[in-house]
Amino acid sequence: MRVIVPEHSTGRLPDAWRACVGTGRFELGLRKDYQDSLALIQREIGFRHIRGHGLLSDGVGVHRPYEYGGSRHVRHAFTYVDQVVDAYLELGIAPFLELGFMPEDLASGDQTIFWWRGNVTPPRSWTEWATLVRSTVAHLVDRYGLDQVRQWPIEVWNEPNLKDFWQGADEDAYHRLYEVTAHAVKEVDASLHVGGPAISPGADEWMDRFIEFVTARSVPVDFVSRHAYTSGPSQHVPFGVYQTLAPASELLAQFARPREQLRGTPLADLPVHITEFNSSYRPDNPVHDTAFHAAYLAPVVAAGGDFVDSFSYWTFSDMFEEVGVPTTLFHGGFGLLTHRQIKKPTFHLYSFMARMGDQVLTRGDDHLVTRDPAGRVTVLAWAPVREDGQTLKLSLPMPGAVSAFALRSSVSEEAGNPWRAWCEMGRPPSPREHQLDALRAAAEPAVSHHALPVTAGRADLDLTLDRHEVTLVEVTPVVTDETPPWWDESRLFQEHS
Amino acid sequence: MRVIVPEHSTGRLPDAWRACVGTGRFELGLRKDYQDSLALIQREIGFRHIRGHGLLSDGVGVHRPYEYGGSRHVRHAFTYVDQVVDAYLELGIAPFLELGFMPEDLASGDQTIFWWRGNVTPPRSWTEWATLVRSTVAHLVDRYGLDQVRQWPIEVWNEPNLKDFWQGADEDAYHRLYEVTAHAVKEVDASLHVGGPAISPGADEWMDRFIEFVTARSVPVDFVSRHAYTSGPSQHVPFGVYQTLAPASELLAQFARPREQLRGTPLADLPVHITEFNSSYRPDNPVHDTAFHAAYLAPVVAAGGDFVDSFSYWTFSDMFEEVGVPTTLFHGGFGLLTHRQIKKPTFHLYSFMARMGDQVLTRGDDHLVTRDPAGRVTVLAWAPVREDGQTLKLSLPMPGAVSAFALRSSVSEEAGNPWRAWCEMGRPPSPREHQLDALRAAAEPAVSHHALPVTAGRADLDLTLDRHEVTLVEVTPVVTDETPPWWDESRLFQEHS
Amino acid sequence: MRVIVPEHSTGRLPDAWRACVGTGRFELGLRKDYQDSLALIQREIGFRHIRGHGLLSDGVGVHRPYEYGGSRHVRHAFTYVDQVVDAYLELGIAPFLELGFMPEDLASGDQTIFWWRGNVTPPRSWTEWATLVRSTVAHLVDRYGLDQVRQWPIEVWNEPNLKDFWQGADEDAYHRLYEVTAHAVKEVDASLHVGGPAISPGADEWMDRFIEFVTARSVPVDFVSRHAYTSGPSQHVPFGVYQTLAPASELLAQFARPREQLRGTPLADLPVHITEFNSSYRPDNPVHDTAFHAAYLAPVVAAGGDFVDSFSYWTFSDMFEEVGVPTTLFHGGFGLLTHRQIKKPTFHLYSFMARMGDQVLTRGDDHLVTRDPAGRVTVLAWAPVREDGQTLKLSLPMPGAVSAFALRSSVSEEAGNPWRAWCEMGRPPSPREHQLDALRAAAEPAVSHHALPVTAGRADLDLTLDRHEVTLVEVTPVVTDETPPWWDESRLFQEHS
Amino acid sequence: MRVIVPEHSTGRLPDAWRACVGTGRFELGLRKDYQDSLALIQREIGFRHIRGHGLLSDGVGVHRPYEYGGSRHVRHAFTYVDQVVDAYLELGIAPFLELGFMPEDLASGDQTIFWWRGNVTPPRSWTEWATLVRSTVAHLVDRYGLDQVRQWPIEVWNEPNLKDFWQGADEDAYHRLYEVTAHAVKEVDASLHVGGPAISPGADEWMDRFIEFVTARSVPVDFVSRHAYTSGPSQHVPFGVYQTLAPASELLAQFARPREQLRGTPLADLPVHITEFNSSYRPDNPVHDTAFHAAYLAPVVAAGGDFVDSFSYWTFSDMFEEVGVPTTLFHGGFGLLTHRQIKKPTFHLYSFMARMGDQVLTRGDDHLVTRDPAGRVTVLAWAPVREDGQTLKLSLPMPGAVSAFALRSSVSEEAGNPWRAWCEMGRPPSPREHQLDALRAAAEPAVSHHALPVTAGRADLDLTLDRHEVTLVEVTPVVTDETPPWWDESRLFQEHS
Repeated sequence: MRVIVPEHSTGRLPDAWRACVGTGRFELGLRKDYQDSLALIQREIGFRHIRGHGLLSDGVGVHRPYEYGGSRHVRHAFTYVDQVVDAYLELGIAPFLELGFMPEDLASGDQTIFWWRGNVTPPRSWTEWATLVRSTVAHLVDRYGLDQVRQWPIEVWNEPNLKDFWQGADEDAYHRLYEVTAHAVKEVDASLHVGGPAISPGADEWMDRFIEFVTARSVPVDFVSRHAYTSGPSQHVPFGVYQTLAPASELLAQFARPREQLRGTPLADLPVHITEFNSSYRPDNPVHDTAFHAAYLAPVVAAGGDFVDSFSYWTFSDMFEEVGVPTTLFHGGFGLLTHRQIKKPTFHLYSFMARMGDQVLTRGDDHLVTRDPAGRVTVLAWAPVREDGQTLKLSLPMPGAVSAFALRSSVSEEAGNPWRAWCEMGRPPSPREHQLDALRAAAEPAVSHHALPVTAGRADLDLTLDRHEVTLVEVTPVVTDETPPWWDESRLFQEHS
Repeated sequence: MRVIVPEHSTGRLPDAWRACVGTGRFELGLRKDYQDSLALIQREIGFRHIRGHGLLSDGVGVHRPYEYGGSRHVRHAFTYVDQVVDAYLELGIAPFLELGFMPEDLASGDQTIFWWRGNVTPPRSWTEWATLVRSTVAHLVDRYGLDQVRQWPIEVWNEPNLKDFWQGADEDAYHRLYEVTAHAVKEVDASLHVGGPAISPGADEWMDRFIEFVTARSVPVDFVSRHAYTSGPSQHVPFGVYQTLAPASELLAQFARPREQLRGTPLADLPVHITEFNSSYRPDNPVHDTAFHAAYLAPVVAAGGDFVDSFSYWTFSDMFEEVGVPTTLFHGGFGLLTHRQIKKPTFHLYSFMARMGDQVLTRGDDHLVTRDPAGRVTVLAWAPVREDGQTLKLSLPMPGAVSAFALRSSVSEEAGNPWRAWCEMGRPPSPREHQLDALRAAAEPAVSHHALPVTAGRADLDLTLDRHEVTLVEVTPVVTDETPPWWDESRLFQEHS
Repeated sequence: MRVIVPEHSTGRLPDAWRACVGTGRFELGLRKDYQDSLALIQREIGFRHIRGHGLLSDGVGVHRPYEYGGSRHVRHAFTYVDQVVDAYLELGIAPFLELGFMPEDLASGDQTIFWWRGNVTPPRSWTEWATLVRSTVAHLVDRYGLDQVRQWPIEVWNEPNLKDFWQGADEDAYHRLYEVTAHAVKEVDASLHVGGPAISPGADEWMDRFIEFVTARSVPVDFVSRHAYTSGPSQHVPFGVYQTLAPASELLAQFARPREQLRGTPLADLPVHITEFNSSYRPDNPVHDTAFHAAYLAPVVAAGGDFVDSFSYWTFSDMFEEVGVPTTLFHGGFGLLTHRQIKKPTFHLYSFMARMGDQVLTRGDDHLVTRDPAGRVTVLAWAPVREDGQTLKLSLPMPGAVSAFALRSSVSEEAGNPWRAWCEMGRPPSPREHQLDALRAAAEPAVSHHALPVTAGRADLDLTLDRHEVTLVEVTPVVTDETPPWWDESRLFQEHS
Repeated sequence: MRVIVPEHSTGRLPDAWRACVGTGRFELGLRKDYQDSLALIQREIGFRHIRGHGLLSDGVGVHRPYEYGGSRHVRHAFTYVDQVVDAYLELGIAPFLELGFMPEDLASGDQTIFWWRGNVTPPRSWTEWATLVRSTVAHLVDRYGLDQVRQWPIEVWNEPNLKDFWQGADEDAYHRLYEVTAHAVKEVDASLHVGGPAISPGADEWMDRFIEFVTARSVPVDFVSRHAYTSGPSQHVPFGVYQTLAPASELLAQFARPREQLRGTPLADLPVHITEFNSSYRPDNPVHDTAFHAAYLAPVVAAGGDFVDSFSYWTFSDMFEEVGVPTTLFHGGFGLLTHRQIKKPTFHLYSFMARMGDQVLTRGDDHLVTRDPAGRVTVLAWAPVREDGQTLKLSLPMPGAVSAFALRSSVSEEAGNPWRAWCEMGRPPSPREHQLDALRAAAEPAVSHHALPVTAGRADLDLTLDRHEVTLVEVTPVVTDETPPWWDESRLFQEHS
């Protein structure tokens, strides 16, 4: 059956999909591979915000107590904060600030999380914490201007509902943290945006109680946030895990929850941010590296904007150290890019989205069709996972065109699948330059192109998709054919002896 | 039938194919598109020398007579010479100097050639010409050092056997020009390399008489040179021509002629340079833009080094103005690259050659197999023109390998064929940026990769070639498979509800 | 006497000085040195428009007649137009279009101007000329959008009052040209801006009659334009000229004329553009290379915006070929930069202007003081030419500051004077790389810095200027001194044995 | 008194000064500011090797034990090692390997050093340590080739004579570590270079006993190494120290010690490497930022090569975290460059050295004069510290020259002193972009130039030095003065009214 794509738009394509992307801990932003990777991401995709952990952890060096004249003082130092944020802004991306974790010297305990030891205990002094928050936010406003910083959401802590992330998963303590922090932010400027509770999946009641708490005590809140993942428990092997995955639709269900929970409360109109999402929440699950992963997430990325204001892919790069320094190039990291900028298939899901038009013409279970102001029609299509072969027939509106030029780019098991190439190479842990070149070549989408005849303002487009394929077809109307009347291709290859 | 590729090399692959490349007139070297194109060429191919016309023509501004104190003087000015040669050397390419054409003020007549009006008449004053030559060469030696310039062949004039290039095709006048010029060069330093007669195809007797002349008069000569083309007469249409072509083997026959002619003469051991070759000698024959062209030239580029010391593809870029400023992006120019650096299929013939190993393992009518010091085996194969389909079965030596990684890159009618894409777009004369992006995407080879099993130190490689395909397969031995014992791909995509 | 600089602004600094800059003929825009130079200019100065000759001359290849089917046709080809304009826009500068000169094939005669032979005769066919104009402007609108092109003034021809530039300096013929052209432009879109008469100095009556003509016949006109120069007749020597110069105030007088002439006419409110100005109109007068030149033009650049909407320095680069290819690096070219981007003193006059604030605090014969929104006060001062020594004492407003940081940058006979360094080197015609490095070092301004005490919200700044000095002093208020209480510089350099 | 500089060289200038430079811990090499800084260093100075701590510490992630099949295994992972070494080699610098500190999992104790917690205890298992060393070195040989790695000295541990760097400063344990490590290195390839004992100043007896130990037990040793510093005890203030300094000659005395100690032993001919030197050994002593520092070290850098094979400035960049993240831009770090690449005066001491010729003409207490093959004479002169004013008069040989061009570059209290500018700005902890621009401008040397008359093949050069000035004068012979006979500067600035 051929889908007749309507000529007129059914509305704008929400760009929640590009509103934010995740990153490893803050000071990784100082690294060259990180910045090169982010530059590539911004050039080919273009996110608006970036969010990660550890802004206030000791690796960034903000909270710096010292003794002088016999008493304790604290210097707030922004050496690295400024270097990273300057780099972000130069790359055209702004921070989505997450306030955490606890500076060691300010911490009330010594519980840490991750290989890099983020302290997850409440502050010893709520006053000193408030000062730290105020000083940090005030510094940003001073350096970058209120107009800028007002557009940077400020989230309080990360997944406080988990014991690993917040000592004892102490909900009252989190509420206090939120309240103190939100007030500290607003003291800098009331127009700044603060929110929480940044919870992990499976903790809906935390969201309900957070809504109650802030409502009851009139605590400032400008957005609510949560995370979304679909993986089951880790099945550990050395340097990695396997996990089961729920169907991708489960991600959209998780996206939808906060809006449902807000409904009927005084906060019903607040923006909802999914400040992390992915299939697996583990940075060492090889599924992240596969062609399957792009096809699995395609319907989520294509439709997520219907449910939330942002959903932030966790994370843009494999430069990420929560379970230590990766021991092999492909290691199941979250990244859209590996170290040294090999593009994974999921990178292209996003790079294809970035080439879609701004007007939706139609949508389906396995496709999304848009148009841009110049009349270019763009089709994103994906093969349902766990199924082989797949065809899609479309009739596209091409008013005023004499023909159309279709440029198709695809990733699948066979194309744009550098992980597969790396396996074929024998999984070299740290590939040589010539191997990296081969992987980079293998990471590019397959490209093909055709002229489509246009009849009565319409062009037929027939697609067959390979296993785990995600494909982008850009169909540009040809308004004038400049082929001169004297052109005769048959004269091109004449022979003589 | 499977070709059993021997394990041991039959000799080095001569690199005459990369010894030189042609260029449009000298001062085009000042242009940005030219230098960007040459940088790309050098990065992906890497030629050693570059040769073009017009070094001494007025656009370069070398010969500058003036009056002072009541008498005539000449200033020799190297403002642009230095800018271009500096750029060449920075890009890792050295000039193959062609001395010509005549500065207007030194010319004995007003006959010119090309849209840009190169004067093709003998000098009014042989003394002033000799001074110009000596001064130019001495300047280069002074600026770049004798060790450098000694490696730059110096060729006297261009195609003097044609009336359009040398007034009256006056052979005696050319012999005089050669003699005066060769002596002027050697006065700067006897170790510099000078040669001629740079004749066009179809003038074998000029070569014979040149050999006689220089021998008889003991005129210095360090190499001989000629050109090779296979096209018939021009069938004109506006802004272009069609032409018949002889089989590509005719090019190899032309390459072979000078060595045959030198045989038995005192000059028998001189280097032979084909200082220009191509299919058509016209910069407006669309055949240059096609996939056919790469397949047509593949056997020539693969085997040319057996016959000559260099054969210089005429020319690296469409930035070329002999028949005027091109009116459309694709216009049948000689270039491996169009303006704005769209790679034509023939570019990839060369970029594939640049990835071949240095040792020849075997050769055939439709393939060349090499190996590099690291054991990587490289296959260049091409579809014979005017035939459809084509298969090639090889058994490759992979001693010591547990498996092999094969990376295949191809251009053909379907892949790496931006001219076809441009036709499908309706032949936009001056494409927009988004069209250029599409053309650049369409200009990249199709890439695929596979693991090849290795049995008893051998891997089978079976290739099927598309119409006009030129393909490169790089087969790298996998010596260690680093897949860990716990790896189990079946656990990667487990589901839960 | 100390100048008490007021705290409050007397108005915005007009930015007519950066509205436009001149360039050599259009196709030089294809060159790398040209684009590298323009990139540097844009990075350190930042002009809005660029204007030069030759858009329609044959080197750009726009007007391309051909025969087909037995009749004459014209293809309008924009290969190079697009390459140059694309480059301009990428560099953040827009064309100020000058329509001229005449394509050879459309010309009624064979009179040419310049080494590069621009044809200066009227069209053979006014219809074909109108078509050429319409087609060119329509192409630009199509490619770049009407919103863009509407901001590109379109000027008809260049200096038609001179016999060398317009055959016979035929005023009626120019009026006809203007009328036909203006109508052709407006046929593309009535909102486009067209103007003239682009006259050279000393032809005020042409302006009067132009005003009369367009008024009388209701010919569209959106601006008037003229040129300004102060040099006397050429005193020729080989490869150069000497000339006398009128005082710089004469330039401001020329700037002022059009507005005076428009006054009282129906065109009184039209914008006035000085589409060329300089001291000498010769591209081979060494005065352009000197420190004197920057000091001479400083009062003109500082005050010109009071008289006109733009005044375009002729030209940004020595890459310019009206009298042929330059034979030496410094040769008296117009450029702010030499070939290979050596900055002349006049470059810095402009780079200093680019660092001025947007609010004028005060002005004087030898200074201009501005402030930017951040409170930074900027002083541009210059030594009157033909005088030695020069002092200037200012009291600057620094409200709220504890001190001030003054950064001074200067060019003079001694500093930032690469021409002087080149003379000291023995005037090498085409310097080597190490000499270019020395010249680039010599071309940077001398930099010094001081802390200025602030008392009662004011800081005293005392300047002594060297011969031909132009200096920029940027005075930034220090609002907080972060020196810690424990700092003791005397402890820094303690010795032990 | 005028120094008559001889025409003939007294020998080559040893380039020990550029043989090596120090760096912060290994994984800082992943950072962008680090790599940008190193690129700048290499472009303007050009060191051959780079040495720092922490290659085997956990931040680099090499030693990775895991459980599988019920037993303990170790994976050696080179993800970051390769990224950093690849970057080094691309920047034209090679590692000077320091083997240390101890991976936590292999350590016998938990004593750590520095903010970043390098473990300084002996291995729990000497076998596992030997395997770690062998595996690491073998990996480097495999990836980079034996020819490369053979040129990378391999040093065992750092300052084992200090309790903070090696638990208990246990000399026997160090000897064992050295022996085990040296054998492990040589097992990879006997031609690799291994050495020690990398002691700090004041431990001459450790060197003597090291020589005895390796001699007695025939332990492989290819070089000996020690460090050199001149600072007294720390006088702490918050975020910094003050210290006394011994005269700079004390550094040369320390350089000289190993050669004296080796004399008469079987190891007398071994290379001697000073693998760290500086004034103060503290990364928070502001003396490193001053103009004084360049003048203080000038005689050391100019003469050090007479005593040792290398002396490695500790360190090239302030990107260094031994006492934590710096809280202010200037903070007394070791760097030749601050964060964000502000050049300190000592940077220029090195950049001036890099412009010296390869032949020494003469030396003195306050100067060094060299010549290069092209006849350029180069003078490095410095003002003795703690003295004001300073003059130096030289007669330079300029055989065959008609005149000479002198280009002078200087840093001093007044020029090239960005720390002073930063103080004048009120010491902004983390300067804004416009402040960084001002600091970068303030960090460039003052440049001046003059023509020197040449008489009888000699040119007089008279220098007056400012406080703490280090100056470089490059004097280039002018062999031909190209000033044309018609040149008349008096005609340049003629006036008319």
